[in-house]
Parts: sequence; C-alpha cells; structure tokens
Amino acid sequence: MTESKPKLTIVKIGGNVIDNPIALKAFLADFAALKGYKILVHGGGKIATKTAEGLGITAVFHEGRRITDKPMLDVAVMTYAGLINKDITAQLQALNNNAMGFTGADGNLILSEKRKNAAVYFGFVGDVLAVNADLLKVLVEQNVVPAFCAITHDGKGQLLNTNADTIASTVAVACSKYFDVRLMYCFEKKGVLMDSENEESVIKSLTFDAYKTLREQGIIHSGMLPKLENCFNAINQGVTQIGIGSPEMLKGESVYTLVTV
Amino acid sequence: MTESKPKLTIVKIGGNVIDNPIALKAFLADFAALKGYKILVHGGGKIATKTAEGLGITAVFHEGRRITDKPMLDVAVMTYAGLINKDITAQLQALNNNAMGFTGADGNLILSEKRKNAAVYFGFVGDVLAVNADLLKVLVEQNVVPAFCAITHDGKGQLLNTNADTIASTVAVACSKYFDVRLMYCFEKKGVLMDSENEESVIKSLTFDAYKTLREQGIIHSGMLPKLENCFNAINQGVTQIGIGSPEMLKGESVYTLVTV
Repeated sequence: MTESKPKLTIVKIGGNVIDNPIALKAFLADFAALKGYKILVHGGGKIATKTAEGLGITAVFHEGRRITDKPMLDVAVMTYAGLINKDITAQLQALNNNAMGFTGADGNLILSEKRKNAAVYFGFVGDVLAVNADLLKVLVEQNVVPAFCAITHDGKGQLLNTNADTIASTVAVACSKYFDVRLMYCFEKKGVLMDSENEESVIKSLTFDAYKTLREQGIIHSGMLPKLENCFNAINQGVTQIGIGSPEMLKGESVYTLVTV
Repeated sequence: MTESKPKLTIVKIGGNVIDNPIALKAFLADFAALKGYKILVHGGGKIATKTAEGLGITAVFHEGRRITDKPMLDVAVMTYAGLINKDITAQLQALNNNAMGFTGADGNLILSEKRKNAAVYFGFVGDVLAVNADLLKVLVEQNVVPAFCAITHDGKGQLLNTNADTIASTVAVACSKYFDVRLMYCFEKKGVLMDSENEESVIKSLTFDAYKTLREQGIIHSGMLPKLENCFNAINQGVTQIGIGSPEMLKGESVYTLVTV
C-alpha cells in the first residue's frame, strides 16, 4: 500500500487572463480561495510585446520564426519576472495567500538548458532539465504559495525564456515525489471539445485509451495533440489528475476535461 | 548568559556598482565567497531612469522633488525586481550560492506603508513596518541566500519603492532575533572619513560616544549623519556590528569603518 501523500494543486494560467486586469483579479480571488498546498504558474501576455515596442526593440525573426534575442529576453525578464509576477504576488498577499514570486533561477527551482538544434536558431529559450522539488516542499510546508513566471536559468548565469505549460507539467511531475499532485490548465476554452465549433461539447473525462481512439478518429487534432501528450506524460510520471478548462473550473462551477490514467 | 546565535552577514550594495557590469561581477564573486548565512540587499542604479526615458515616461516633480508616480513605480518594479534582481540571482547561482531574489511582497518578507505627510506628496514610496524574520530564518537555514531589491508592499496589493539602506538595516534588526548579525554597507568611499577630501583618512572604529564628539566638532556632517544615525539605531536594536566601506571590504583587504556600541 502506498503511503498517503498530502495534496498539492498546481494551476497554470495563460497570457489572455494576464492581459485583462479584471479577469486576472477574479482569477486570483478564485485561486486564493483554493484550500491546501498550491503553486501558480503564469504565462506572459501582450505586455512584453507592448514594452518592447515602447522601447523601440523590434521582434527578430529567423526563417519566419520569432526568436528571443537578448533585448527581447531582457524585456521578458522585466515584464514577466518583474511587473506581472510581482503584481500577482502582491495581489495574492492582499488575499491572504503567502505568495512568493519566482523565476527558475530563484533557489535554483527550475534548471534548464538553452535549446540546441543545428537546423533552427531559437535564441534565449530554455528546456527544463530539473526542478528543485526538495526546496519547493520546504516552502509549501511553510504555507508559502510559489508563483512562477516562465523564466528559468541554465545554472551558468543565463536566464532563459521557457514555455509556461512545460514549466507547469515538469513542476507537477517533480512534486509528485512528495505530493498527491492535481494540475489544472486554465485556458480560453471550457475543455477539450468533441466539436471545436461547439464550446458546450466538452469531453468530461479522458483516459489515454479514449484519447487514442479520439485521435485516430480525428476528433482531437492540431494544437490539442501536444498539449494532451504533455498531460499523459505527466500522468505517467506520477501526477494524479489533470484538469483542462476555463479559469471557472477553479470554482468547481464549470465543466472541464479531466485527464486521468 | 546569552545563548550563542548563528552568524548572519547582510551586505548592502549601491546603484553605482549595479551600473557597472564588471564591478558587479567582481562584487558578486566576493559576496559569493563569504562563508555562512548571508543576505544581499541591492539598490537600483541608472537603468530605471534609462528604461523610463526609453519608454517616454518623464520624471514627475512635486515642489522640486522627484516623485514615484505610477508609471515610474512600474519601471522600478520592471528593472529592480525584474532585470537587475534576476540577473544578480542567476549570477549568484552560477557562483554556487543558492540565491533567491525577493521584493518585500514575496513571502510578505517586508511589509511597508505608503509614506504620508500632509505637506509633501511622495507618490508610491513605502516606509518599512515589519520584516518576516521567521520565514527568512527558515530560508537561510536551507542555505538559501535571499537577495532583496528595494521594492516592498503594503499588504493590500500595492508595491512600493523603498530606500535600500533602510531595508538593509530593518532586515538586520529583525534578523538579530535569531542571528548574530553583521551588516556591511558598501558604497563609493572607503569608509567614514576624518577629512572628506582625503580618501585615506578612514575612521577605522566608531563608537556612539566617538560619533557624538566628531559630530559636535563638525568632522562628521551632511549625508553621513542620517546614515550613521541609522547604523546606531540598528546597533541599539541588536545588530552586533556594522561595516561601512567600499565593496573591497568583503575581501578583508581594505580598511573600512567599523560601527560598534
């Protein structure tokens, strides 16, 4: 029999909520009301692009793909780790959650490596190598609520822009060593849809077998495929359950897709 | 007999070092080499002004005094809590110091209140009310190296610009509950000088009685008075010793002024 672990909820919120101060405030109130140990991971939003434009920094493209060059990384650090992360931290404090805003450099919580691919230049983009779950455990047991932005570091002094979905899933997997982890991905839809045109066609429960069938039938396709592959990888590595849905799912008043074994 | 407390070194570094990447790198190497528990407090430097200029934000003055209005506070948060604080954190990580970059909002580590004075408008400037020494104790005992920028919060969701010297002394006083605290103020001179024109005339040791005499004689004057009043207040509230000097004092290779009871 497996020893019972304490529960930990990890919530990932996307840039579309960050961009809307009223939606962000409502989301933070719902997040703050969640009981028990928890971690927040937030995306960036449009403020980085706006700040870069204001500073006269132009987006650099390489073979059609936008890349994170040094000036753009600095803007990401300023806006994600500075403005957004500290605003979220201060707002959560006002809601009696003892939030601490983090990049992966802080406490070496998320170590990454600069993405390398002979064929493609990405710039200062990092792929996660390791999560310091031991220190996260100490923090959450002090009732600290870690709030991560999507900046990590390489351990050699370099900060790196990193995908927030990946941060959420790798933190979830690492923390499943000590906790019974529930991961909630909040995005702009109510969940994984049977019919992408019908917002009400949410698949309420999705096992890996059901996913394979729906994928073969072409019902689940496009951008949802990597998102769900990521989810099932996390489930296979110890995360107990994953919810995909709108921020409303935090209140338990909305349908959402529950991804399970 | 008083129980022996573990030693804690708190170092405050000013904006002049932050502005010089080579000097900053050298300073961080010296700081990283310090043994035992430690905390860093850093000032801002000119990058906030440069960023504000770049964004077309003009400094606002009120009765001749520059004030921190909302756009300028946002720039301070972006540059101090974002760019500078996370660069310092990543650099310290590369030097095998498990740094965590903080504002006062993080973990409610430094609670402040917006400065009020019927006669003067200051904008978003905070005076420290309380330091969460209990959580700092947990962190440093995990060998975390807290690195504070000079941004605090009011507990109601508002971030506030705060004097870095004051942050260093209030953190030092609060931590003296648990630690034998040594505070080191690094600035552009080698110490408190007998003759402000002679950089070699450093007063090596300064007790409160000696300070009072030198003040009466007009040898210590101007900006050094509030700095030293601040130091003696900290000493009277439990800080064991305070050093004032150039960043070289971290290496123990430079003279500096030692402020004691």
